[in-house]
Amino acid sequence: MSDTRFTNEQIDRLLRPKSVAVVGASDRKGALGATLLNNLVQYEFDGEIYPVNPKREEIQGLKCYASVTELPEGVDCAVLAIPRPFVLDTVRQLAERGCGAVVIYSAGFSEAGEEGMKEQLELGEIARKHGMVIEGPNCLGCTNYIQRVPLTFVETNMKSPSKGTRAVGIASQSGAIAAVLATVLHPRECFVSHSVSTGNEAASGVEDYVEWLVDDEDTHVIGMYVETLRRPEAFIRAARRARKAGKPIVMLHPGKSNKAQESAATHTGAMAGDYQLMKAKLSREGVIFAETLEELGDILTIALTCPSLPGANMAVLGESGALRGLAFDLAEDIGLDLLELHDEDSPALRAALPEFVPVSNPLDITAVGLSEPEIYTKALTALLEDERVGSVVSSIIQSDPVTSGIKFPHIMKVLEGGTFSKPLVFAGVDEGATVPQDYIDGLRKVGIPWFPSTERAYRAISRLADLAKRDLTDRSGDPLAISGFDQINGVIPEYKAKELLKPLGIAFPNSQFAATADEAAVAADAIGYPVVMKAQAAVLGHKSDAGGVLLNLKTADDVRAAFDQIFKNVAAYNASIQLDGVLIEAMGKMGVEMIVGAKNDPQWGPVVLAGFGGVTAEILKDVKLFTPDLGVDQVKEGLLDLKQAAILEGYRGSPALDVEALAELIVQIGRVMVGNPAIREIDLNPVIIHPAGEGVVALDALMLVEQS
Amino acid sequence: MSDTRFTNEQIDRLLRPKSVAVVGASDRKGALGATLLNNLVQYEFDGEIYPVNPKREEIQGLKCYASVTELPEGVDCAVLAIPRPFVLDTVRQLAERGCGAVVIYSAGFSEAGEEGMKEQLELGEIARKHGMVIEGPNCLGCTNYIQRVPLTFVETNMKSPSKGTRAVGIASQSGAIAAVLATVLHPRECFVSHSVSTGNEAASGVEDYVEWLVDDEDTHVIGMYVETLRRPEAFIRAARRARKAGKPIVMLHPGKSNKAQESAATHTGAMAGDYQLMKAKLSREGVIFAETLEELGDILTIALTCPSLPGANMAVLGESGALRGLAFDLAEDIGLDLLELHDEDSPALRAALPEFVPVSNPLDITAVGLSEPEIYTKALTALLEDERVGSVVSSIIQSDPVTSGIKFPHIMKVLEGGTFSKPLVFAGVDEGATVPQDYIDGLRKVGIPWFPSTERAYRAISRLADLAKRDLTDRSGDPLAISGFDQINGVIPEYKAKELLKPLGIAFPNSQFAATADEAAVAADAIGYPVVMKAQAAVLGHKSDAGGVLLNLKTADDVRAAFDQIFKNVAAYNASIQLDGVLIEAMGKMGVEMIVGAKNDPQWGPVVLAGFGGVTAEILKDVKLFTPDLGVDQVKEGLLDLKQAAILEGYRGSPALDVEALAELIVQIGRVMVGNPAIREIDLNPVIIHPAGEGVVALDALMLVEQS
Repeated sequence: MSDTRFTNEQIDRLLRPKSVAVVGASDRKGALGATLLNNLVQYEFDGEIYPVNPKREEIQGLKCYASVTELPEGVDCAVLAIPRPFVLDTVRQLAERGCGAVVIYSAGFSEAGEEGMKEQLELGEIARKHGMVIEGPNCLGCTNYIQRVPLTFVETNMKSPSKGTRAVGIASQSGAIAAVLATVLHPRECFVSHSVSTGNEAASGVEDYVEWLVDDEDTHVIGMYVETLRRPEAFIRAARRARKAGKPIVMLHPGKSNKAQESAATHTGAMAGDYQLMKAKLSREGVIFAETLEELGDILTIALTCPSLPGANMAVLGESGALRGLAFDLAEDIGLDLLELHDEDSPALRAALPEFVPVSNPLDITAVGLSEPEIYTKALTALLEDERVGSVVSSIIQSDPVTSGIKFPHIMKVLEGGTFSKPLVFAGVDEGATVPQDYIDGLRKVGIPWFPSTERAYRAISRLADLAKRDLTDRSGDPLAISGFDQINGVIPEYKAKELLKPLGIAFPNSQFAATADEAAVAADAIGYPVVMKAQAAVLGHKSDAGGVLLNLKTADDVRAAFDQIFKNVAAYNASIQLDGVLIEAMGKMGVEMIVGAKNDPQWGPVVLAGFGGVTAEILKDVKLFTPDLGVDQVKEGLLDLKQAAILEGYRGSPALDVEALAELIVQIGRVMVGNPAIREIDLNPVIIHPAGEGVVALDALMLVEQS
Repeated sequence: MSDTRFTNEQIDRLLRPKSVAVVGASDRKGALGATLLNNLVQYEFDGEIYPVNPKREEIQGLKCYASVTELPEGVDCAVLAIPRPFVLDTVRQLAERGCGAVVIYSAGFSEAGEEGMKEQLELGEIARKHGMVIEGPNCLGCTNYIQRVPLTFVETNMKSPSKGTRAVGIASQSGAIAAVLATVLHPRECFVSHSVSTGNEAASGVEDYVEWLVDDEDTHVIGMYVETLRRPEAFIRAARRARKAGKPIVMLHPGKSNKAQESAATHTGAMAGDYQLMKAKLSREGVIFAETLEELGDILTIALTCPSLPGANMAVLGESGALRGLAFDLAEDIGLDLLELHDEDSPALRAALPEFVPVSNPLDITAVGLSEPEIYTKALTALLEDERVGSVVSSIIQSDPVTSGIKFPHIMKVLEGGTFSKPLVFAGVDEGATVPQDYIDGLRKVGIPWFPSTERAYRAISRLADLAKRDLTDRSGDPLAISGFDQINGVIPEYKAKELLKPLGIAFPNSQFAATADEAAVAADAIGYPVVMKAQAAVLGHKSDAGGVLLNLKTADDVRAAFDQIFKNVAAYNASIQLDGVLIEAMGKMGVEMIVGAKNDPQWGPVVLAGFGGVTAEILKDVKLFTPDLGVDQVKEGLLDLKQAAILEGYRGSPALDVEALAELIVQIGRVMVGNPAIREIDLNPVIIHPAGEGVVALDALMLVEQS
């Protein structure tokens, strides 16, 4: 797939068509071409409809065309509800007749094997050549809820937002999820502007539709289901524009588990990307991640209903002590910050409460609201006005119409009476309580989403607060180019890698390369004893395993003897390995072993990995990914979020370690990666982190370079 | 609180009263005494009602009594809707008139400070002396949904199960949660038999009500909210009886987070127990734990609706590939086992599917069910008949009445046509879809619970499958008594602890105690060099910190010098420490450091803690609790579930370690704890685990003994 995106005008012909050909139109109940035509007729599509069916004169009172070659020139969009074998030829013919866009429902392309993949590539070619948008194949079509154009074979509930109402544009690689989302959102009085299911993405992908949705004035939030972003750069461009336009992107992307990755591969025929890498990169672009389908709907609900998104630090008004304890457990589980509030530091809230209710968060107003319901208005307003609070949840026992009738109006009143730059969310604690629909609608009308359970409100807010906690400023330093680097290729052994990186400020122990035993002894004399000797060759990946590392050499004689020994060891390990020589290095102080690595992903670009090294590194996976645009402070924050961060902060009397220096190293490595795109991988392992102020030292270095 | 429980007959007077006095009866709207009286009158309580109110002649047509002293003798139950200051005297008077039970709504007792606590203790005294059940204080009362007795001031929806219908008995330390649960369950056609909120538990606790519910023939499942079990032994007795009676206990118990523990303490005035300890003990008794209120309702829904509980290994029938990937992610997140299914190993399912649908789990039948809905019946039946499958979820796109109408009947048919020893659960994927209520009710009638989202069904099943995976057989070995142990008390230093434990089969390095430098040299000679020397004194907790451990002593002279050095070191560290002498010990092979500890909780009894030791032990908390009734195999399973279990299994070429020996040590320590109740704590840290077959060795030992 090329990186050239379709223009908005080209996509307009798909999403805002003035004429639609239904190829394979039918009136047989259940046939795709019948439901599609029904959808268009039922919702009174405001343009030309051209049914195509060689066996019929007319369908639903519309004149039928015998083939696409008989269609008028320049139809905006043709929807193919025909069997797979006819698709490719039909698309060719449509392209030649100047058709602007084609929707292909049929499956059996890239996901079905070689032959299908070949045809899919041809579809892509045609699209490019003619500037014709192709949606699919293997998709459910698209629906424009604004101009009411349902180009889908799914029974559609055409619920259109009134002008100016906030609405979500959906770009989904799964048709099922696109359809489900509309079903979920509509009953919550949340509106969809456009919904596009992209299927196999032969020519156009979610990236194109997000670009278009960013410019669409009827779209305020973008909801996505993605298994593989085929053009990360294009998506990142679109995501940046979305952020500028103030349109949050909420994404559901399976693939955390290995099993899910396998599943994605068989489903769309796309190679699954590296989930963690994708998440690190897109988090930097302000993308909000939902973890489940339920969460996706819930996050979109808040983004659509509330006048603004949650900030960090949630406050809760509740009515039971038991729910306090449960809130703490859940918050800790999902990483949600509950602000601490006390009588002393919250005078406004204090004043809003009866004496016997202490200020706390979650606040437990007990059953007093039943007799003094103004307390809801007063306490919620005080919480919303509190600058420390990023969002407010009203966690309420609804019980029955009488009880709801006492509470709801006083909660609505909060937003009727004021506007706040943070959301107020209503969460029932007794799902299934009979609450008159009017009350729920009343909340929504003033901008308070209604959640059936507290747990769900917390989870959705937690994901949104995660965005608020990110500092998205680009703090990239200048790229650090390695001089003369274009001469270098392949696996770079330790001594060369250190030579290349040292001038850029990466700290290594004092060392010298030696090709002979005498050179080694001279080097050791110069460095000072004791020294370590390490065998050097590009093909020698695991030096220690080969007996290629000898420690604690104390004299020149030791060094000479070691030189011979190391050559013998490596020869015994693998006779085909030809050593370049050895590296003589000062024995440094020991310390906590960290690992710093980097890779330049062909799709996503460079990323730095850092965390705890040592024996259990791979078992505990206590590492994080850092994008090269982060600043030192942000990297430090990430490091202090590692599972074993307590070790960095000074654990049990041991000193605090030099996290600052480690963060600087990580930033520096990021700049190296950006400055030398030919570097595929760097591995500094271990990196010893010394007490604060004493720096970090990389004991080993390895690089993989691929000059293009 | 004494450990004597109330008899069922005594509790009958509270939960199945034939006469009820309403003390503080009223007809003022909103008054507790008014709502209570209304509840009784409205639901036509089938016994005598005695309103007590000195200012009234009659209320609601019932004759009023001026005071409780005027009540007839032997009223079954009196409900106090009166201010706190009058409670104690009234309870005294009621006890003297032979009243069987009292419900106290008022707050302001143990949770309000010293004075309240004092009065609460007096309430407990009166209850004990007179065999009078007291519910509360600070509670919402109780409701008998079978005989229709609402002794609560909460507006009650008296939905009674018909004879034989499965119903849940609720015992809750929070009145709000008891009320919420009924609200949540009723719309799902799930019934409550009895609901009791125990408040401050002055005299009767959840333990008593669980005992009663176990014997209640109208109760089939027990639902609990608990902040502190005040009488663990009594509860464990009840839980065992519940298990025998086939009545699952589902418990929501906040306190995982520290914050929640604090909150619980302020809420009920009870000291919070150790959450992990409680959970380890009660898991062994078959208690099912819900993590959130939503989960509690959902687990109860399955337990009430399905004819049997889920086993391990869930299978899913779905209709979209996208939902497959999401299922894998969620399953991994919540520890739910999705069984692997393939064409080759699942002939029955294979035969039930169209050719183009491969067997898999989750199964993705695509949209084919719309045209061939029999596939739902056939595929679900095949899954339910599969012996490997422990539960089946039907994860369905409901969309609208037409789509639901195609699918639901073929799903109901599965249980109309057969009975299976595992549950079938329906989970919609598009919450809010307009599904005719008849369909949902139809599912429930045949025993298929309807969930609005897949996520929730998965979470609830995961908790229930956790129970199925537990082997609850008691495999306790004989208690191991230490001979002459009654002479011992206080902190036992290493050399004495080792002397005591060695004869019981705990492996330590070869060692000898020495009180003088000469004795030390003799001991070292006997043991063989090199040796380690460790300072010994009961008050010396951290030997290393005091310079009290000297390693690698190679000669008798070394040992003599070390002896003097160690005394100097400790004196410098803390002049008040008087050493008993030193322990001379063989230097053993190094290996992975584990920790094995045990404690005898005054409330919960003995438990053994084991896991990874070393520097990061406290940071990673990679440990588990083992009750002493576990067998070696079960302990092994637990150990192989540690985060760093890969190290035990042989990581990266290093050998598998002796998990068997470690498990044996843990079981042995459990037997020691049971055999010597005076031991408060044992600490074996570190325990070195050697390669498989080579055993484990405890390098250090410490004991704390408190003879009663």
